Amino acid sequence: MDLHREAGLKNDTLLRALACQPTEYTPAWLMRQAGRYLPEYNATRARAGSFLKLVRTPALATEVTLQPLERFPLDAAILFSDILTVPDAMGLGLAFSEGEGPRFERPLRDEAAIRKLAAPDPSAELGYVLDAVREARRALAGRVPLIGFSGSPFTLACYMVEGAGSDDWRTLKTMLHARPELLHRILEVNARAVTDYLNAQIEAGAQAVMIFDTWGGILSHEDYERFSLSYCRRIFEKLLRQREGSRVPSILFTKGGSPWLAAMMKSGCDAVGLDWSADAREARRVAAGKVALQGNLDPSALFAPQKSVREAARRVLDAFGSAPGHVFNLGHGIAPQTPVDAVSALIDEVRTYSRSHRSRMAAGT
Amino acid sequence: MDLHREAGLKNDTLLRALACQPTEYTPAWLMRQAGRYLPEYNATRARAGSFLKLVRTPALATEVTLQPLERFPLDAAILFSDILTVPDAMGLGLAFSEGEGPRFERPLRDEAAIRKLAAPDPSAELGYVLDAVREARRALAGRVPLIGFSGSPFTLACYMVEGAGSDDWRTLKTMLHARPELLHRILEVNARAVTDYLNAQIEAGAQAVMIFDTWGGILSHEDYERFSLSYCRRIFEKLLRQREGSRVPSILFTKGGSPWLAAMMKSGCDAVGLDWSADAREARRVAAGKVALQGNLDPSALFAPQKSVREAARRVLDAFGSAPGHVFNLGHGIAPQTPVDAVSALIDEVRTYSRSHRSRMAAGT
Repeated sequence: MDLHREAGLKNDTLLRALACQPTEYTPAWLMRQAGRYLPEYNATRARAGSFLKLVRTPALATEVTLQPLERFPLDAAILFSDILTVPDAMGLGLAFSEGEGPRFERPLRDEAAIRKLAAPDPSAELGYVLDAVREARRALAGRVPLIGFSGSPFTLACYMVEGAGSDDWRTLKTMLHARPELLHRILEVNARAVTDYLNAQIEAGAQAVMIFDTWGGILSHEDYERFSLSYCRRIFEKLLRQREGSRVPSILFTKGGSPWLAAMMKSGCDAVGLDWSADAREARRVAAGKVALQGNLDPSALFAPQKSVREAARRVLDAFGSAPGHVFNLGHGIAPQTPVDAVSALIDEVRTYSRSHRSRMAAGT
Repeated sequence: MDLHREAGLKNDTLLRALACQPTEYTPAWLMRQAGRYLPEYNATRARAGSFLKLVRTPALATEVTLQPLERFPLDAAILFSDILTVPDAMGLGLAFSEGEGPRFERPLRDEAAIRKLAAPDPSAELGYVLDAVREARRALAGRVPLIGFSGSPFTLACYMVEGAGSDDWRTLKTMLHARPELLHRILEVNARAVTDYLNAQIEAGAQAVMIFDTWGGILSHEDYERFSLSYCRRIFEKLLRQREGSRVPSILFTKGGSPWLAAMMKSGCDAVGLDWSADAREARRVAAGKVALQGNLDPSALFAPQKSVREAARRVLDAFGSAPGHVFNLGHGIAPQTPVDAVSALIDEVRTYSRSHRSRMAAGT
């Protein structure tokens, strides 16, 4: 892995762990680490005027991407962006109303619109994301790797068909059961779009990529394979694997994916993200050192006093064990109400405890 | 199983399936089968004036309990009631505001209230539920068995601490991480209360009982065992097992419980309910004919045309296979928007397809 260092990366712990290679401690980053629990994030967002403006302005996106690294010794930065940039570039019209979630002005409701759907050209239509990747890489100056990301084809389809978030995704599910061929058509386009989008991020400088399958967990066992995992597999087949002389690892995370971890591990990704319901010991056994694992602390553990936070971190580290191939993370995005001091305690404990554990192992005690 | 028939039960298919004994077809019932998708239910509810009035009036609860049996050849009735009757009887003050979910007027927020919490005496404080069980049994006159139920100790605690439903259960989770001993105290009381409540239902005539662990799925792997399953196990140890000369089987359902099915199967219940994320083939393999399984059609499959509904039903039946010990159900409660005709098609298909499949097996074809 000297390649990473030759490429100017001062801390390649994340990349080594994702390659199931030994590390001096367990690397850590947090899903949604650049987010509303940070006062400086809220200040930048206020300055931007809106969430979408923040996403679409590379200088501001870079600013918030780096903010958590100033506070905590994290082992990765993740590009600040939104999973819905891709359907927005497809012409669906993304909007965020204050206090509510995302909404599409033109959801996919009729067959004609679905037949016309096409994958966007990232350099032409998602240039602001690629600019943000380039600018964040420059600003990071090799401190830690930059993770690029996308929503999964299925998760994007959920919003594209439903038009917004949902408790039961009834419109989407009705299409799935009544007109599965229409949903498959959307998913095919999405798989091409996500492949192009992630490859463009890699070419712009993303050193690892992650697919967020936020809503795969709403599917039945058989439907998860048919409507979500099979399309992720197509993406992993076509992702660029090398860049700047280094391997670019890929991570697949399905919220609620615990029943399907073994299948996810065989999908062609380098690492599987676990939500907090997953049995880390069992997942490690199934992964057998061939696929790395990322996770999986319950984000709500951060609402407790620091002593409890540290205990919770140690329990997660103990469950994953000290064999190579674990990246510490939460099992879902960090909550906006999370106290910043709890995050400090968490990251400190992960670093300290995993390092001392490795030392004890090395000393044979 | 002649015992059931001697006891006057005309259709004991459910009880035989729950005992992993052969049946002529796969018995079926639906979670929330007496509910808002039925116009006659809405009429009775309107007549009652409120949901709580419906729950608290044995004659009306009996009426809606039997309504779905008039429409569909179901193999069980489930008592119409609400899981929050128990904390209401503990003095928390249950209220339903129109269009919103349940709310407690006096949620458990301070240590003194938690220390004072006590399990209610069902015959004194939940008499209306036991009266409804007795009245429903009389009205059923042995057509099909009557299932009694309760929320799990953990699921009840979720509402008792949070005071209402929640997206993130932050108050509850903060207690879990910061003051676990307080949550354990609530769970101990709840386990006693649920045991007494289910045993009182059995004594009043419930021929099977089910524990709904609706929120167990929000827990981490380790916390599920510590805060939910261990308390269910205590209940199963103390449930009455025989009544009227028949075994009274118990069913445990955790929404989102797929990662923990093996542990659930060893908890002392007779059957495990599967949500739609569960892999039925794998669950059958793990159950090994020792524990029955119930489930697991995605309720949203009922939004599709009847041809798709029938196909979906066959896929579930094929996944469970024809060995004894499967009770057909949805993977979650039926949605209020479900078309009644879709339910007719579903129940017809389950009966017809599973019966013909068994005939083919018997004929060796």
